Amino acid sequence: MTVQDKTSPGTHPHVVIIGGGFGGLQAALALGKKEPALQLTVIDRTNHHLFQPLLYQVATAALSPADISTPIRHVLRKQKNTVVIMSEVTGINMDEKRVYLRHGNISYDYLIVATGAHENYFGHTESWKPLAPGLKSIEDAQEIRRKLLLAFEKAEIETNPERIQQLLTFVVIGGGPTGVELAGAIAELAFKTLIPEFRHIDPSRIHILLIEALPNILNAFPAELSSKAKHELQRLGVDIRVNSPLEEMTTDGVIARGEWIPSDTVIWTAGVLASSAGKWLNAETDRAGRVKVLPDLSLPEHPEIFVLGDTATLMQDGKPLPGIAPVAMQQGRYVASVIGQRLTNSQPIAPFRYHDKGYMATVGRAFAIVNVGKIRFAGFLAWILWLAVHIVYLIGYENRVIVMLQWGWSYLRFQRRARIITRSAWLSIPHQKKASQSKHNGA
Amino acid sequence: MTVQDKTSPGTHPHVVIIGGGFGGLQAALALGKKEPALQLTVIDRTNHHLFQPLLYQVATAALSPADISTPIRHVLRKQKNTVVIMSEVTGINMDEKRVYLRHGNISYDYLIVATGAHENYFGHTESWKPLAPGLKSIEDAQEIRRKLLLAFEKAEIETNPERIQQLLTFVVIGGGPTGVELAGAIAELAFKTLIPEFRHIDPSRIHILLIEALPNILNAFPAELSSKAKHELQRLGVDIRVNSPLEEMTTDGVIARGEWIPSDTVIWTAGVLASSAGKWLNAETDRAGRVKVLPDLSLPEHPEIFVLGDTATLMQDGKPLPGIAPVAMQQGRYVASVIGQRLTNSQPIAPFRYHDKGYMATVGRAFAIVNVGKIRFAGFLAWILWLAVHIVYLIGYENRVIVMLQWGWSYLRFQRRARIITRSAWLSIPHQKKASQSKHNGA
Repeated sequence: MTVQDKTSPGTHPHVVIIGGGFGGLQAALALGKKEPALQLTVIDRTNHHLFQPLLYQVATAALSPADISTPIRHVLRKQKNTVVIMSEVTGINMDEKRVYLRHGNISYDYLIVATGAHENYFGHTESWKPLAPGLKSIEDAQEIRRKLLLAFEKAEIETNPERIQQLLTFVVIGGGPTGVELAGAIAELAFKTLIPEFRHIDPSRIHILLIEALPNILNAFPAELSSKAKHELQRLGVDIRVNSPLEEMTTDGVIARGEWIPSDTVIWTAGVLASSAGKWLNAETDRAGRVKVLPDLSLPEHPEIFVLGDTATLMQDGKPLPGIAPVAMQQGRYVASVIGQRLTNSQPIAPFRYHDKGYMATVGRAFAIVNVGKIRFAGFLAWILWLAVHIVYLIGYENRVIVMLQWGWSYLRFQRRARIITRSAWLSIPHQKKASQSKHNGA
Repeated sequence: MTVQDKTSPGTHPHVVIIGGGFGGLQAALALGKKEPALQLTVIDRTNHHLFQPLLYQVATAALSPADISTPIRHVLRKQKNTVVIMSEVTGINMDEKRVYLRHGNISYDYLIVATGAHENYFGHTESWKPLAPGLKSIEDAQEIRRKLLLAFEKAEIETNPERIQQLLTFVVIGGGPTGVELAGAIAELAFKTLIPEFRHIDPSRIHILLIEALPNILNAFPAELSSKAKHELQRLGVDIRVNSPLEEMTTDGVIARGEWIPSDTVIWTAGVLASSAGKWLNAETDRAGRVKVLPDLSLPEHPEIFVLGDTATLMQDGKPLPGIAPVAMQQGRYVASVIGQRLTNSQPIAPFRYHDKGYMATVGRAFAIVNVGKIRFAGFLAWILWLAVHIVYLIGYENRVIVMLQWGWSYLRFQRRARIITRSAWLSIPHQKKASQSKHNGA
């Protein structure tokens, strides 16, 4: 018996979406409106859609994971034609039109692959990934939060000055928007929130580094904006090192441009690699593993398979489309239209075209840079715009107002309410011993 | 070099508190007001104080961990005479007046031991604890949440009817307030929140059991109230089995009163055992490991050591004081007074006496039972009182208003916003493989 038998799509064409990120979810919402002309199954390895642009706020204890995550089945609960499955895809048989899952398999008439991307450690995945988490999942954010908060707790009781320096050195690898946002938030967490609450940490020992291999940070932005962001970051206390390719990483620190930097906390935001979808589909990919798709986002020779978002690459005006949420969302809605057109045999739809609504990045709690076409601005007003856009786009997040309130509170008080250290390896003890030593549970 | 040297308390008497639960924190807040007459150090194994009475709300995805946790050093940040240390106590040398930590050691003039209690598996800790988590820490609550939510995800794609039954059977062991509150919340999570969002789960297959060895649940309450709570629980869909001592537990289920109950999700709330403090102090304890203290809460022959909360036992009016938050909080404040009196050689203070402000327990989202002296009532008004008391007592939780808003939202919509499954063992894959299969991170 297969998952298919249980989640039988009936006689209507069956669309399967792999991935509940920005692209997959937009496709699912758009296809939900085409009921009862089709049946839809959405497969994701987690149970939640994640609003990844705010993940750095979870990593720096300003927001809780639940503030930026919603169960996928909750978002799609009203779509009678939709089934959501939490499982992991292990392969695709394109001849049989069948997706193989960790728990069963399922057949499709149309397949949408929107499985995103993960960190690119440029050939050092095995040795560097365990040392320097990226910022792609809730687990990543929790791991970074734990490392940041534990470093301060350890430094508070450490007596060796060299070790203190190592504990209070925080290294962010990669000067893209994620690295910049994270470094700014770490600076605020350290200097504004934590320092007043520790008795033995000398603020001058805190060293936050942003390391970038290229000559500049925020290379997707015009030079004037990235320069403003750079100054704001420096004002917050971040030490920016450009032209500094990472050479080595150990449990004790990193080497960048020949310099040894002792650090317990290294975070990786230096690049992305597409998911394994290219291998499943036996497709032609670019260097970052992105599947080369046709102008209607379908796979060459497979008009029934679409690939989108960070998993795909498509040229527009001579440049590849960037791997950002708006591209994936527009592609998701576009693919839903194309499938709708195929089902009804209506007029063919024009090739996909990304409508650029602009870029933005935030630095610290009240500064952002915004680039919308020819309009460019930086500062507090840009940050207000950034805030408004992010709140509006917390789609399906019915706690939008609450998240906004928490931000407001955090902004006014420099507080970060989610400062919980869980599963601390530092204090981890064998199970049995733990059982007999459990304490401070006064109730 | 020791922690002592770094956190040198100077020439003033040094009070050390072990444990940042209800008792320890109240003692710390009261002693903070005695600055500069003394120096204070608070040691806890975690970085946060936990509002344990609401932990079941985290376990059932209604609240996030951060909603009911506050960093201990944040609560005590304004006390200039106070140092907070995150570490674990490994032993106490009462002759040298020294506490040994996992990272160093520290000397004291006065010691307050408030290390709480943990689950009592009645001799089966090694075999049962890994199968049936208790509800004492954030990690416990997250583990229960993960188990509950995963059971539904697995049942949605399972085809074997017996296995479906096993997945949808939830067993809570122990009919005290924690077990009752948890069982009620699980029933609401299952029937009100989850069922509408799953396509293939038959609500009649969901079986929530509350198993109690004694002839009744909620034995600390008058029979009329526990009977009302029982009826409300049954109305919510909980199958209550009294006179059913647990006989066996395996990965596949439990045996209670001779009956085999297949279940993937078993939760333990059947009893508590005091922390190891009795062993550290080489003290006389009762059967539950609680240290027998003198009427001023000091250890016999050690007037400089105090033990309180769930770690201690004291008779009042012929009965031992219950292991609840109000007792620990009153004891914490009392011990601070006694230490203040000793330091100033002022008039001796009368023996500790617990002022009973009443008991309450909640069943589901709008029903509670309240027993204040001779006043007893149950229902919606009791729940409003329960809500008010719990909000007022979220001391130091500056997000009190936000937590209240979330509750309001949850109450109105039957939504549970914290439904995130993280670190799913079900889908866990080796590190390397995970790296190459990371997906649905569309950004």
